Amino acid sequence: MPVNLPAPVAADLHPVAGVRIGVTEAGVRKANRKDLTVFLLDEGTTVAGVFTQNRFCAAPVQVGREHLQAGKGIRAMVINTGNANAGTGAAGLANARATCAALGKELGLAPEQILPFSTGVIMEELPVDRIVAGLPQAIAAARADNWATAAEGIMTTDTQPKAYSRQLQVGGKTVTVTGISKGAGMIRPNMATMLGFVATDAAIDPALLQGLVKELADGSFNRVTIDGDTSTNDSFVLMATHQAGHAPIASWDGVEAQALKAALLDVARLLAQAIVRDGEGATKFITVQIDGGKTEEECRLAAYAIAHSPLVKTAFFASDPNLGRILAAVGYAGITDLDQTAIDLFLDDVHVVVNGGRNPSYQEADGQRVMKQQEITVRVVLGRGNASQTVWTCDFSHEYVTINADYRS
Amino acid sequence: MPVNLPAPVAADLHPVAGVRIGVTEAGVRKANRKDLTVFLLDEGTTVAGVFTQNRFCAAPVQVGREHLQAGKGIRAMVINTGNANAGTGAAGLANARATCAALGKELGLAPEQILPFSTGVIMEELPVDRIVAGLPQAIAAARADNWATAAEGIMTTDTQPKAYSRQLQVGGKTVTVTGISKGAGMIRPNMATMLGFVATDAAIDPALLQGLVKELADGSFNRVTIDGDTSTNDSFVLMATHQAGHAPIASWDGVEAQALKAALLDVARLLAQAIVRDGEGATKFITVQIDGGKTEEECRLAAYAIAHSPLVKTAFFASDPNLGRILAAVGYAGITDLDQTAIDLFLDDVHVVVNGGRNPSYQEADGQRVMKQQEITVRVVLGRGNASQTVWTCDFSHEYVTINADYRS
Repeated sequence: MPVNLPAPVAADLHPVAGVRIGVTEAGVRKANRKDLTVFLLDEGTTVAGVFTQNRFCAAPVQVGREHLQAGKGIRAMVINTGNANAGTGAAGLANARATCAALGKELGLAPEQILPFSTGVIMEELPVDRIVAGLPQAIAAARADNWATAAEGIMTTDTQPKAYSRQLQVGGKTVTVTGISKGAGMIRPNMATMLGFVATDAAIDPALLQGLVKELADGSFNRVTIDGDTSTNDSFVLMATHQAGHAPIASWDGVEAQALKAALLDVARLLAQAIVRDGEGATKFITVQIDGGKTEEECRLAAYAIAHSPLVKTAFFASDPNLGRILAAVGYAGITDLDQTAIDLFLDDVHVVVNGGRNPSYQEADGQRVMKQQEITVRVVLGRGNASQTVWTCDFSHEYVTINADYRS
Repeated sequence: MPVNLPAPVAADLHPVAGVRIGVTEAGVRKANRKDLTVFLLDEGTTVAGVFTQNRFCAAPVQVGREHLQAGKGIRAMVINTGNANAGTGAAGLANARATCAALGKELGLAPEQILPFSTGVIMEELPVDRIVAGLPQAIAAARADNWATAAEGIMTTDTQPKAYSRQLQVGGKTVTVTGISKGAGMIRPNMATMLGFVATDAAIDPALLQGLVKELADGSFNRVTIDGDTSTNDSFVLMATHQAGHAPIASWDGVEAQALKAALLDVARLLAQAIVRDGEGATKFITVQIDGGKTEEECRLAAYAIAHSPLVKTAFFASDPNLGRILAAVGYAGITDLDQTAIDLFLDDVHVVVNGGRNPSYQEADGQRVMKQQEITVRVVLGRGNASQTVWTCDFSHEYVTINADYRS
């Protein structure tokens, strides 16, 4: 059961002029399952992406990076579920290239104008024949108002599709931002078995796009963690079709440019948080906020030590205010000169720890009350400076073990 | 159910001349439970220890370090379970000191001649009155042949006591090495909610002892991990009573000195591995061996990435040869210039991955056969150099979640 994550309503997902999406059943791994999605992008669309930092990155990630660098203009994307095409060696690379070539042939594009994405089981050969055979049907199904179907089409262990949409005014024109994401396990920054696709019809100077996608990822997908496992396939792609009709945005100065960036970040962050809300076995959505650090980096260390600790996460699952486990995680986070007597800990509004010791006025009943909530903020004040960082995670339940022990069966 | 970890047989645990141990029920947290243990050490015993690297270290760790540095000669140790006296601020330090003062008074020793140890729940006040009240009874119960009882007396979530003993000849005399350990969760290097106590009647130059205890820890307790959580209280103590009657060992050169060190390492390693075998919810004992690294440090990174991955550990629990998860963990371990096409993976004798891709001759049935075993060796060959590292871990089961979600209830 996802945590406060209603299914998207198709009517709320505004089409993005210049983007059409087709979804079909190609039988990649299982029959009767939407497992093949294509994005068709009008000419003039600019595309930027960030990819997993995992050194064992999947074949489609390697090929996608190459194609972005080729600079021929990305005009389509192809996404399959059921098989990650990772740990597949030279054959995997050939299969990713063959998929792009086949889609390019159907569309009259060069293979370098296609980005491939795969998600699913690692280390099994991609059934490229079935994928190629499904492409004409996916293309034929392409429509501008297909975002909700696409959100379903890219799901793996997700229990809920994930899609958000925003509109705003830029230069007197309505601009749309719409995106989808998937991922429910193997989630941690840089990045996750996480796919995120956000499109806007805004006109954004292509020179700004790579910096923008990095900034959006750092504020969204790179702040979520479920189990600390960084996947081989994570990708986040931003598409700008330039069709909204306003004057191109050439810098982020100005109220409207900032509003556009805020809308993009809002969609990216909701998509990232949706992945945590649908985290494998999640029953709670946890915000971990570290304040008072000397540097953002040490805040990040402390935040992830808490967010990755199985002991902390099982305590959240049990609604047990066993908050010493949080202190212990801060202690081993790697801040070598940490002074434990400067640390305060809050659970929502409850002040649990003062100066590294139990707050004399803390009542376990107050901690228990917060721990029973579905949404909890853990705030640690390090008492060393003014830096802050926030990450989002979920608890660790029996269901996580069940899902991951049974994934391939 | 621990993995291949039979209960120690009291008759196999040789007393160490100069060491007496008493155990009693002090009602620290629960009634009718052996929860207070004292070690009484003859004059002339030398003692060295290594402690948790957690910056949020517990009060007894802070006091123990001070007392070792005071150099007055450690003559006794006091260990309570049920309460870790961690996250307890100034009151916790006062309570640890009060415990040492009380035991010193009973024994006619200075407080600085006592080492205190606590294990159990974090962030609750130590019931020092009940501990102090129990000391006379623990002292009265002290006997040389009490190692098996002590192994029980220091247990928390352990399901099995842990104790090993070895004898060898040094300088024509019989030398004994006997030790106990506890710990079943919050286990990772440097170190764990892990207590280890090893005593020998060998005569070892006191100048060698601190280096020896560090070397033993690095070869044993610092190579085990259950859940990646480093505790606030971990301690490993080595006692040498000098009563075996041989000429003191002044260097590690020579066959007999090496044999003594090997026996000490053997006991320390068995004690550390016993903690993994009794890991919370463990159903399998996994050896992770990394070969072919450029440096030992990068081998350690890869070994711990595998050993800490919840996805890898749940796959072991399920006996599912979902070995791509292992490759993914190696990929995010932090070896920035890793070449995935140089990597081989073995599961015991089964060659699963060649040059970063699936071995053409690999049959899933072979992987399945190994995964069903209770003891499994995962070997990754990085193909970059000659460095190696080994760590030991366990799988991740439903029972882990149950234990940690219910710990305090």
